[in-house]
Amino acid sequence: MKALVLFSGGLDSTTCLALAVSKFGAENVMALSMQYGQKHDKETKCAEELAKYYNVELKHYDLSSIFESSDCSLLKGSSEEVPEESYDEQLKNRNGNPVTTYVPFRNGLFLSVAASLALSYKCDVVFYGIHRDDAAGSAYPDCSVEFNFAMRNAIVQGTGGKIDLVAPFVDMTKADIVAIGTALHVPYEMTWSCYNGGNKPCGKCGTCIDRINAFKINGLEDPLEYDKAK
Amino acid sequence: MKALVLFSGGLDSTTCLALAVSKFGAENVMALSMQYGQKHDKETKCAEELAKYYNVELKHYDLSSIFESSDCSLLKGSSEEVPEESYDEQLKNRNGNPVTTYVPFRNGLFLSVAASLALSYKCDVVFYGIHRDDAAGSAYPDCSVEFNFAMRNAIVQGTGGKIDLVAPFVDMTKADIVAIGTALHVPYEMTWSCYNGGNKPCGKCGTCIDRINAFKINGLEDPLEYDKAK
Repeated sequence: MKALVLFSGGLDSTTCLALAVSKFGAENVMALSMQYGQKHDKETKCAEELAKYYNVELKHYDLSSIFESSDCSLLKGSSEEVPEESYDEQLKNRNGNPVTTYVPFRNGLFLSVAASLALSYKCDVVFYGIHRDDAAGSAYPDCSVEFNFAMRNAIVQGTGGKIDLVAPFVDMTKADIVAIGTALHVPYEMTWSCYNGGNKPCGKCGTCIDRINAFKINGLEDPLEYDKAK
Repeated sequence: MKALVLFSGGLDSTTCLALAVSKFGAENVMALSMQYGQKHDKETKCAEELAKYYNVELKHYDLSSIFESSDCSLLKGSSEEVPEESYDEQLKNRNGNPVTTYVPFRNGLFLSVAASLALSYKCDVVFYGIHRDDAAGSAYPDCSVEFNFAMRNAIVQGTGGKIDLVAPFVDMTKADIVAIGTALHVPYEMTWSCYNGGNKPCGKCGTCIDRINAFKINGLEDPLEYDKAK
């Protein structure tokens, strides 16, 4: 059994990688990271370091051109700032739309690239680290149970049953992921979740707020040092 | 209503484009063509000419790097020749696998790119021209009714209900497509279906055989001149 893991160098996907390595062994795991026009490359560098740490092969693709006309606030081309609020707060002003950091159908695209590469590299399964908190309130519709169910079906059908899709955390919270990752000894000090590319994570964007909280729920402290007091 | 059409310059996707233009008007239709490492660029040139003919904007993306490790016989990197047999003949030796011209999860990938661009360009729907003959015997599993059903669901869910997917020919034959296209006055002499990049279509690859046959079933003659006698 050989697995390809969508891997950004963030907390969720690093735990997902650790889980895949624990199940299949590092020699049967490949990691896949993507450039998509994000404003900084901190997470890409973390992904490289973590792939070395786990001794897995890392493939990297640049899909920036596909998102060039998007107004998503995560992207270089956007004039919008990354919001400094929790997702709950952000969603109050979105009228049922995703948050501004939603990259258009990003997970669909990344998973399709992964499915294609998985066939070429003779993998059996694609893993990715979506979870329930990101799907809540339709903040990121491409993280939902419904999306995952459909996309899994599309990949199984469209590859002639050769590739399966597994989202081990799809019905878990970020705190659940931290609990699993802690048991797996994930080096969270090497991961990067923040949407901003400062020297230290900002502590104020949606993903920083969620991450700090996920450690707190577990009675733990995030090993990263933040710009602002936690 | 604004539509984005997956468009290769072949018979199926040109008929699909003509149908979208007839439904929504050329000003509400965008076409999307892809480089994926194919051995020739005849169809890309046809796509450009046909987009001008229909007066629709054409977007073009290069996804070749994603397929570089594939052994698909359509691709430049492959040492395999494109088979000179009908799909039925080819499938006899494939042990349930797709034909060698199946590009790994290509439709999944192209549709994901289309869904992402459709959001950025404020389209409502993605059209593509898959049909029953290509799905038959699992020659191309990413052309099946089951794949289309799942992929449509994935796109609807993953875009927060913003983008729909329509495969108008999914349960039709190629002959049905020619009948519709003839009624829509599609300039089939401007299209290119052949998997080989000669001056004239080869008349021997799976897609040439299917195309010639589709016209015959309608009591018509393909307006293209073939290398070999039809």
